Amino acid sequence: MMAGMTETPHPLYDRHRETLDRALTAITERGYWSAYPESPSPRVYGETAAADGKAAFEAYLGGDFPLDQPGDGSSVATEASPFGVPLDVRYPHAGADQLVSAATAALPAWRDAGPQARAGVCLEILDRLHKNVFELANAVQFTSGQAFVMAFQAGGAHALDRALEAVAYAYAEMSRHPGTAGWEKAAGKGDPLRMTKTFHVVPRGVALVIGCNTFPTWNSYPGLFASLVTGNPVVVKPHPRAVLPLAVTVKYARQVLAEAGFDPNLVQLAPEAQGEKLASTLALHPAVKIVDFTGSTEYGDWLEANARQAAVYTEKAGLNTVVIDSTDDFAGLCRNLGFTLTLYSGQMCTTSQNLLIPRDGIDTDQGHKSFDEVAAGIAGAVAKLTADPARGVELTGAIVNDGVLERLEEVTKVGEPVLESRSVAHPSFPGAVVRTPTVVKLDAGDTATYSREWFGPISFAIATDSTEHSLRILRETVGEKGALTAAVYSTDEAVLDAAEAAAIDAGVHLSCNLTGGVFVNQSAAFSDFHGSGANPAANSALTDGAYVANRFRVVQSRRHA
Amino acid sequence: MMAGMTETPHPLYDRHRETLDRALTAITERGYWSAYPESPSPRVYGETAAADGKAAFEAYLGGDFPLDQPGDGSSVATEASPFGVPLDVRYPHAGADQLVSAATAALPAWRDAGPQARAGVCLEILDRLHKNVFELANAVQFTSGQAFVMAFQAGGAHALDRALEAVAYAYAEMSRHPGTAGWEKAAGKGDPLRMTKTFHVVPRGVALVIGCNTFPTWNSYPGLFASLVTGNPVVVKPHPRAVLPLAVTVKYARQVLAEAGFDPNLVQLAPEAQGEKLASTLALHPAVKIVDFTGSTEYGDWLEANARQAAVYTEKAGLNTVVIDSTDDFAGLCRNLGFTLTLYSGQMCTTSQNLLIPRDGIDTDQGHKSFDEVAAGIAGAVAKLTADPARGVELTGAIVNDGVLERLEEVTKVGEPVLESRSVAHPSFPGAVVRTPTVVKLDAGDTATYSREWFGPISFAIATDSTEHSLRILRETVGEKGALTAAVYSTDEAVLDAAEAAAIDAGVHLSCNLTGGVFVNQSAAFSDFHGSGANPAANSALTDGAYVANRFRVVQSRRHA
Repeated sequence: MMAGMTETPHPLYDRHRETLDRALTAITERGYWSAYPESPSPRVYGETAAADGKAAFEAYLGGDFPLDQPGDGSSVATEASPFGVPLDVRYPHAGADQLVSAATAALPAWRDAGPQARAGVCLEILDRLHKNVFELANAVQFTSGQAFVMAFQAGGAHALDRALEAVAYAYAEMSRHPGTAGWEKAAGKGDPLRMTKTFHVVPRGVALVIGCNTFPTWNSYPGLFASLVTGNPVVVKPHPRAVLPLAVTVKYARQVLAEAGFDPNLVQLAPEAQGEKLASTLALHPAVKIVDFTGSTEYGDWLEANARQAAVYTEKAGLNTVVIDSTDDFAGLCRNLGFTLTLYSGQMCTTSQNLLIPRDGIDTDQGHKSFDEVAAGIAGAVAKLTADPARGVELTGAIVNDGVLERLEEVTKVGEPVLESRSVAHPSFPGAVVRTPTVVKLDAGDTATYSREWFGPISFAIATDSTEHSLRILRETVGEKGALTAAVYSTDEAVLDAAEAAAIDAGVHLSCNLTGGVFVNQSAAFSDFHGSGANPAANSALTDGAYVANRFRVVQSRRHA
Repeated sequence: MMAGMTETPHPLYDRHRETLDRALTAITERGYWSAYPESPSPRVYGETAAADGKAAFEAYLGGDFPLDQPGDGSSVATEASPFGVPLDVRYPHAGADQLVSAATAALPAWRDAGPQARAGVCLEILDRLHKNVFELANAVQFTSGQAFVMAFQAGGAHALDRALEAVAYAYAEMSRHPGTAGWEKAAGKGDPLRMTKTFHVVPRGVALVIGCNTFPTWNSYPGLFASLVTGNPVVVKPHPRAVLPLAVTVKYARQVLAEAGFDPNLVQLAPEAQGEKLASTLALHPAVKIVDFTGSTEYGDWLEANARQAAVYTEKAGLNTVVIDSTDDFAGLCRNLGFTLTLYSGQMCTTSQNLLIPRDGIDTDQGHKSFDEVAAGIAGAVAKLTADPARGVELTGAIVNDGVLERLEEVTKVGEPVLESRSVAHPSFPGAVVRTPTVVKLDAGDTATYSREWFGPISFAIATDSTEHSLRILRETVGEKGALTAAVYSTDEAVLDAAEAAAIDAGVHLSCNLTGGVFVNQSAAFSDFHGSGANPAANSALTDGAYVANRFRVVQSRRHA
């Protein structure tokens, strides 16, 4: 037998076995579970954790980021904080061939270590990141424009949960077959045929993760860890404006890999210079066999069409839609949707854009409400949440880039505003670019306007002929352009069923009658799927069997027992 | 809740539950198991089964195949039996749009029936096919050129086992999450948040299966049943020379579907007229979302490059390789490889082609054997198996098409024959085209010759500098051109380890020291993987998690509990 073929429990596997087992149970039950507490409270994380993390973050600013990986000697600094805080971190640069060679050289020993050792190391990396979650949260906040609590949760605790979820799926997939099996078949009057079969998990090759600006960790971790735990070395190409969160991630991953005796080049950072197109060069490299991408439809489609040597997983844009038919809690509906539209200034891939409301209005617990009253109710909830700048910015955060500002300008020309966007001075960061959400009235006939994605704090109250018409629009627009989320509000079971049928046909996840503390733009790790892969917004779900099963192969050997 | 959301056990699921459960266990253990007895003996199948099946087969000949599916009124007859038996079966023809529309219309009810109902129906189809396995075996024999026993086993029992294996993997994948889950999250001092989540299995769309000439059932069934059980209607496009086995399959599948109250157009036959290129038209149809193909590298690569709207699973050509280093059973080695080269005239995608032997010979239990003695030993075993025409043809079967004959002619010009191919008169079928295998001597330098696939009864005894050199050739040629099988013979554990390392690097399944009743060209359902997807010979394994997980999506809905 080859070295590494029979697994002796790896010490890091032993250390994290309980967590992994719990995660394995969670993905089969899909009820509530979380491994990493989402509250940044000192009662959970200790009195000094927040300050220590902030200090660690600040220590990076204006300096050379400490990363001991192969490079070409140059460095890049491309970030600009939405909060107007100078970052000026310089990252060591490497060329595509250099990165891929180093990754390729690291592969065999990592492959031969086996699933348990790799899972143990990955969980230790997650643990290390968790120990530094405040540092990570600050990095996410100041590159993405998320307010701190959201950066801590979505960029820290929830991202770690999603990573663990991906590791659990991948581990389950790798271990669904035994490492070895006996095979005995009767053979007439003679001795039975007896064979021993060994099943090796073999990675696809080098994996590339292309990060996005808004959720540098949350959207990258599932692919990063799914590829890594299945044996593929990972090259992490961050968005040029959100390098630090992934640099911090790579730094701690390399630290753990080296401590565990593995080649730290199993995880490398690939920061790119302005206009370098390093992502495309890497994505087309013959040795790159897996690509994970979150970002624009245009580039995602390009990757799918051109990175033919690789398995390509994309999350792109879509038309998140809400069908409003009726409600027994109008205030709750308004509060809930208002929060969704306000959170992170609507800069989530899951934020609702198209609110489909019958032009004759809807029945509610407060009596019949006209179309305008419904639109005003939702807009009013947004206005209330953003009325006080100090409290508002803790929800909205800052605007991630100029593209959003341009769309905010453009949208003033396409319809009548129910609520106008306002510029807000951030009480703590004078350089922050803050805009409150706008809600614009449209008619169902304005297809050209609402059938494109207006990423940012922009949503449309769209007057339709009826709920049936709304559902037809959902089916058509989501079927054609995709969506990551859909929601429906109705007191009529038949409408809820029809909405569910439309969502299934369009392949989009549906939330029904959310009026409390659960929001359509938020998904819970280990329970909700993110993306379905069943519509044009994404070609896969971030965590399920299909997301991990194709990242490795089983190669068997057999010999007479 | 929508109809069909909560599954009440389907009667066909109940009927076959035990078989499915056993299959689900088998795929996790991967030891020996089979659901369909491989012996065509009357003691197993009854005294009249063989004659009844033959009669059923013969009743099709010269007539219109009974298939009540949408068509354009024309029919096609494209088969020519390798045994020279007139077939002249006419199959109803349909255009791509007609087939796809009928399939699309059948989808929703099949999707909404849920995994258990679909699994029950699929197992009932397999059961129905098994009840008619002799009919199927005759159809396979006379279209593929396989001898009867092989047609019964590979084309009948083993094909059914592989189909069941695919159903089991798909069922496991569909049921790894519950249909519904409760989710409860503490929410400060208030009531906890409580949601009910429903997870729907949603198929990709219309599935296309493109069959091959040599193994019309065995190579088509995994894709057909993996797609069908996950909710996708399947259009079965048979090879123009091997339509009948899949026509019989489609006939019984439609029968069972109709009996169970489903639209029989969930499984349709798509026979093509000469030169029609129906496969390509179907493969590029926007509604076709899954393609399974077995056949040439050229067409498989074309599908992968062009059927971009679909998930494409291909099994193509390769260079199956044997590394001969040493043996403690020279007679067994020769017998075993001789049988492999002889079976079905080497017309298996798994038959060894390149036998790599050190030019200085090898150590054996019969003392040192020179290169020529090793080549002669293997060739001698082939000669012995084919010496008597009556017994020989029961192994070789007939030559499937003229391409094989052309290669047999061409190969006489490339090297010195150790064993020449002979034309043999078939004792029962005077029109049969029978050729015994040839073994040709080459040198390791003759790369241009042995680094292409010579599909058919052609193998090369290739003189290498050493076993290390042989392993280098395996690694390089298989890495570049792919292979479905590899084998090694050695008494040295270090060599076996090195061969296993080379096989892992090249991504090919390895058999070690086969000298008895297990052959490198045969894989056992539920235990051996067929294809790895880790080298250019195939982009997937025929039955594993990755083969099924991407054939459906999970779409969820959630509402307050």
